[in-house]
Amino acid sequence: MLRAGDLVFLWSPVKGDSFLVRLSPGATQGSYLGQMKHDDIAGLEYGDVILTNRGEPFFILRPSIGEYSRRVKRQTQIIFPKDSGFIIQHLNFGPGATVVECGTGSGGMTCVFAHFVGDGGKVVSYERREEFSKIAESNAERWGVRHRVEFKIRDMKDGFDEREADAVFLDVQNPWDFIGVAHEALAWGHRLGMLVPTFNQIERALDALTEHGFVDVQVLELLMRYLKTDPRRIRPEDNMTAHTGFLIFAAKAKPVPRREALTDAESA
Amino acid sequence: MLRAGDLVFLWSPVKGDSFLVRLSPGATQGSYLGQMKHDDIAGLEYGDVILTNRGEPFFILRPSIGEYSRRVKRQTQIIFPKDSGFIIQHLNFGPGATVVECGTGSGGMTCVFAHFVGDGGKVVSYERREEFSKIAESNAERWGVRHRVEFKIRDMKDGFDEREADAVFLDVQNPWDFIGVAHEALAWGHRLGMLVPTFNQIERALDALTEHGFVDVQVLELLMRYLKTDPRRIRPEDNMTAHTGFLIFAAKAKPVPRREALTDAESA
Amino acid sequence: MLRAGDLVFLWSPVKGDSFLVRLSPGATQGSYLGQMKHDDIAGLEYGDVILTNRGEPFFILRPSIGEYSRRVKRQTQIIFPKDSGFIIQHLNFGPGATVVECGTGSGGMTCVFAHFVGDGGKVVSYERREEFSKIAESNAERWGVRHRVEFKIRDMKDGFDEREADAVFLDVQNPWDFIGVAHEALAWGHRLGMLVPTFNQIERALDALTEHGFVDVQVLELLMRYLKTDPRRIRPEDNMTAHTGFLIFAAKAKPVPRREALTDAESA
Amino acid sequence: MLRAGDLVFLWSPVKGDSFLVRLSPGATQGSYLGQMKHDDIAGLEYGDVILTNRGEPFFILRPSIGEYSRRVKRQTQIIFPKDSGFIIQHLNFGPGATVVECGTGSGGMTCVFAHFVGDGGKVVSYERREEFSKIAESNAERWGVRHRVEFKIRDMKDGFDEREADAVFLDVQNPWDFIGVAHEALAWGHRLGMLVPTFNQIERALDALTEHGFVDVQVLELLMRYLKTDPRRIRPEDNMTAHTGFLIFAAKAKPVPRREALTDAESA
Repeated sequence: MLRAGDLVFLWSPVKGDSFLVRLSPGATQGSYLGQMKHDDIAGLEYGDVILTNRGEPFFILRPSIGEYSRRVKRQTQIIFPKDSGFIIQHLNFGPGATVVECGTGSGGMTCVFAHFVGDGGKVVSYERREEFSKIAESNAERWGVRHRVEFKIRDMKDGFDEREADAVFLDVQNPWDFIGVAHEALAWGHRLGMLVPTFNQIERALDALTEHGFVDVQVLELLMRYLKTDPRRIRPEDNMTAHTGFLIFAAKAKPVPRREALTDAESA
Repeated sequence: MLRAGDLVFLWSPVKGDSFLVRLSPGATQGSYLGQMKHDDIAGLEYGDVILTNRGEPFFILRPSIGEYSRRVKRQTQIIFPKDSGFIIQHLNFGPGATVVECGTGSGGMTCVFAHFVGDGGKVVSYERREEFSKIAESNAERWGVRHRVEFKIRDMKDGFDEREADAVFLDVQNPWDFIGVAHEALAWGHRLGMLVPTFNQIERALDALTEHGFVDVQVLELLMRYLKTDPRRIRPEDNMTAHTGFLIFAAKAKPVPRREALTDAESA
Repeated sequence: MLRAGDLVFLWSPVKGDSFLVRLSPGATQGSYLGQMKHDDIAGLEYGDVILTNRGEPFFILRPSIGEYSRRVKRQTQIIFPKDSGFIIQHLNFGPGATVVECGTGSGGMTCVFAHFVGDGGKVVSYERREEFSKIAESNAERWGVRHRVEFKIRDMKDGFDEREADAVFLDVQNPWDFIGVAHEALAWGHRLGMLVPTFNQIERALDALTEHGFVDVQVLELLMRYLKTDPRRIRPEDNMTAHTGFLIFAAKAKPVPRREALTDAESA
Repeated sequence: MLRAGDLVFLWSPVKGDSFLVRLSPGATQGSYLGQMKHDDIAGLEYGDVILTNRGEPFFILRPSIGEYSRRVKRQTQIIFPKDSGFIIQHLNFGPGATVVECGTGSGGMTCVFAHFVGDGGKVVSYERREEFSKIAESNAERWGVRHRVEFKIRDMKDGFDEREADAVFLDVQNPWDFIGVAHEALAWGHRLGMLVPTFNQIERALDALTEHGFVDVQVLELLMRYLKTDPRRIRPEDNMTAHTGFLIFAAKAKPVPRREALTDAESA
């Protein structure tokens, strides 16, 4: 049975209008199809239907984690589920991981990361602008993952406190300025990720990765296309998001030993 | 320090040749650049470099989880990281989840799921063909997640044992035949997912979802494009995977109450 | 020097606002940046700048042919330049060709075809609904290619008058119903094309093509993505058209002779 | 009836194996399905079937123009039909046009352009390396459009001989070096096009276009995806070409008059 504090996803069959809500006593969720009282949702269960004051049905569903990032109160660019799902896998943001995020922004990605590291893991999220960090903190509170995140307000050029981190993710305009400090924070053989919107940023980021000896460098982009769901007229939607950003990944590794050194070692 | 039983990702700067390996005493990893003894890797650390018997360097990196699915010993179609990352988020395969997989196949996806549910979660994976289930079991053993998976060999039309599952994923040729039993196994308000390669399968799956009252139905596809990493000649790769499959998602929900019923309730 | 009757493309640097106009004495082109009198454009030349009554500049450019289809007065779905360019090449709509179009619609594609067949070629365009044919005729008049098009109003199931046509293009909801009559109209070894928006239509069209012995069947789709043009921030646009339609092509060919017949012929 | 000198497209139902051939007395077309004598094809007609010496059928079809570019004897990068079809429309390479091509290469694009300008039009194609120009000339001969092309061997930095050209297309590695001379050759209000494979080239080209006052600048890319044609298993092909190049277009225009000048004019 749902109660205050629970997260619910409200979905209407009318144009797929939907909301991600944490139930709060006395609160009301507005929509252009009418209003719903949180107190009327409490006491129901996932899968039930709530009607607005105008009689329009909303289904009460369990939220998808990808929604955490898209539904934050935000003032910055969000990261889409298509991208965050790939990041989570490539950087191993699984249960128990300790990860560093550079550029908290509105905290959408922070919350997704925090979900996947579980109670045994930790996300340390750095941000220079205090006002963003505060928004992110409230979003983390709302999504129920606040206890897994350490928010730090700092000019990140001064470096990160962490060492041997399982992964580092840079979500800033100038990631090349932080590749050195990311290298310091990251465990050997582990991976760094970043997302940049422009080709020009890729160019500078690649130069910085080379300079710091990163290997297994990958640059990629993901495109997502929804299809219409009428079974007699199946076709892609008319419009799609053409671009969110380019993902860049690389692993921290030691240099290949010089041949002389090899010979010495082998002759030893 | 790496030791027998640890998983390592061996990556060569020559054409990105790479291997996902569980270290085993006495074993040897072959490659067209020469051989590496597992015993020589044990004792080193992530980030170190191992040289083949022909002097070619391989970097010893921590594996990415997306690789689990691509690197299994397999006889069936694999699921790509671009797809599995989205599935994990949309179906909430996070720490502690109990999920049902219909169609173990070679177990690549099973292992990815098992990674993300953590030690507090559980994957129950059904397969009709015993030989596949055995391969999947050995893959799960290899990726270190065997203890989180229950493999069941059965004709799935007889139904699943589970009830109130957090999520169900169907990876079979005829998912429409299992939507009824998936409905039984799934918790209310939770989500079902499936992956089908052809349009014709979408059509039949959509009909079956409607018949069982599923809501928030989504059909989508993801395209991934790698870019070349020469900073002075940044451009997409010449070729890409054009298609893996269409992802279909839907949530289990109760029917909208009829208007009469509403009136009764409201007048009560 | 431009004069009444000439076609001009008016392009504003403000958001790329633009118009395709045939100069007409006394006429005025409105825009949210102000108005321009056609008579003020006459007397200028391509490459010149015209100012609206509010002092906003519009460049007077030569129209691109792809615009013919997008800028028609229309009540039906248009065909995009990305698609029409491919059709023109695959069906050889070059100078001197005689081509049959089934489904005039608003005539946008008719005009593009008519441009490329030149004065030595001919487009015969069939349409069931007289009101559409009339709109198309006025569009062809406007784009200056009316003399190359024969418009016929007819239920096309009764067949086409032409035989030995260089190409046939079907732009109707149910192309499978016209593949028989298209076969009759088309020259041997020449190609038939069609555009359909849904997967379900592909299925039926493929069945009909097989039934009539067409060969070299191709089904494809084209995706076009614009990039932003700030040289310091080059990146794809945020949004794009995700789908216009699937293109289907096939060639009319005789059946492969049976082996017996072969033997007879060879022994003769 | 086909005769020596005619162009035919030979298409086999076995894996779509195909050839674009100009019939030449005494010549033989080899294939892994056996051989065909040109003299046996002469006398047949489009739509007929020819059997190889091993009894395998090839259909004799009319060539598609898009094939001209893909099937040239070549030593350089080709331009794909998806791209050339868009170029033709955007640059108005229709009947009667006079166009300048900078970078003949193997002449594949030259031939496509020459097809569409017709006998009343002309393509002037510049190339620095004589050996390429010779290959292109023989390709144009082969596709029957030699008489519409003027090949010039020259370092194009010295400029083009033409003025008031209907369109200019640059297909060279360093298009920015030729934007000045292209501006000289092009008619006012008409369009320049180019194709570049890398982002870095876009950046330099955009700077050069701005410097020369071009307007209506567009950068775009086209993606083409084939679908499998089994009507019961409709799905995209497994692989596709991920990238050929970015298309850049711009129009030559006069500068916007300064405000003072305006006032003078208006007060006059």
